[in-house]
Amino acid sequence: MTDTNSLEVLIQALKRLPGVGVKSASRMAFHLLQHDRAGALALSRALKLAAEEVHHCERCHTFTQAEVCATCLDPRRDASKLCVVETPADQSALERTGAYKGLYFVLMGKLSPLDGIGPKDIGLKKLFDRACDGLVQEVILATNFTAEGEATAHVINEGLKARGLRLTRLARGVPVGSELEYVDLGTIAHALVDRR
Amino acid sequence: MTDTNSLEVLIQALKRLPGVGVKSASRMAFHLLQHDRAGALALSRALKLAAEEVHHCERCHTFTQAEVCATCLDPRRDASKLCVVETPADQSALERTGAYKGLYFVLMGKLSPLDGIGPKDIGLKKLFDRACDGLVQEVILATNFTAEGEATAHVINEGLKARGLRLTRLARGVPVGSELEYVDLGTIAHALVDRR
Repeated sequence: MTDTNSLEVLIQALKRLPGVGVKSASRMAFHLLQHDRAGALALSRALKLAAEEVHHCERCHTFTQAEVCATCLDPRRDASKLCVVETPADQSALERTGAYKGLYFVLMGKLSPLDGIGPKDIGLKKLFDRACDGLVQEVILATNFTAEGEATAHVINEGLKARGLRLTRLARGVPVGSELEYVDLGTIAHALVDRR
Repeated sequence: MTDTNSLEVLIQALKRLPGVGVKSASRMAFHLLQHDRAGALALSRALKLAAEEVHHCERCHTFTQAEVCATCLDPRRDASKLCVVETPADQSALERTGAYKGLYFVLMGKLSPLDGIGPKDIGLKKLFDRACDGLVQEVILATNFTAEGEATAHVINEGLKARGLRLTRLARGVPVGSELEYVDLGTIAHALVDRR
């Protein structure tokens, strides 16, 4: 056992964070030990608590500490609409708009055959069961507009279209505040087709 | 207490890491909870252990779990040479060159009047006591070649030049404006050989 053992273990543990290499990990460890030990202990407690207490909501699959999350339990939400998103971050982006009052289903991932992520890994069966609860009338596909997100939306569409549900996709178009000159051609083409 | 409490606390705690904003923190929290709970618990333990067990070496001020670090205790090191560096990362960059067999003093910072960091904050008094132990004959100033690093080297030079010690600075083979941690090993080795 070398005498820098705890420090080395900490650097290795920080390297498991996404986007953190050995130099960033060393810098983080140095910062915490030299300038913010209270922060190190706070992070230690927060990690333990979250890893032990945060589970998936039984209904929408997002992260929650309860069996069913607050959004799913909220009686003011419109139970006839179900919005399908890839991650809790996407869900909170939609929530911040204040423009949606229905419920959500969070896939916690997307189809990605190249990475070996298939329909079972992102719980599509659970989504299909959830969408057929008798209350949901419209499923809004709000997966990302990337190749994987589009493929995921396509598979969900195929799986649900025989069940009498209205299936919609977020509109594609020119972002608010942008200038046409700088928008890519695919987006402009979609915006033209979907003009209203 | 909302039902996303543990998750929110975790995101806030991750934001205390240097270079991590709210989006990176959310991404890290999501990754750990969705794909690597073992990593979250390992990081939690590593942070607690390091924050509780890692202290400063009594002699060279670097991070260690013992009272005196392994480098300072190593009888094969040349006790007549003392190399002054800013951080443990700088020290390990010098160690990796294999070109230096003396001892170290790690400032754990640098003079930075704009940030309110003066001689007391980086333990210059402790360095002066350490350098005058009767064994040290040469002090090698290996602070970074930045404005703050140069100022720090200057102040140490002023403080020690009356005490009969040989004072050298890493040769200017090291590119001006760069930090040791990121310089290639060959350049550092040349700078050590050409110290003046």
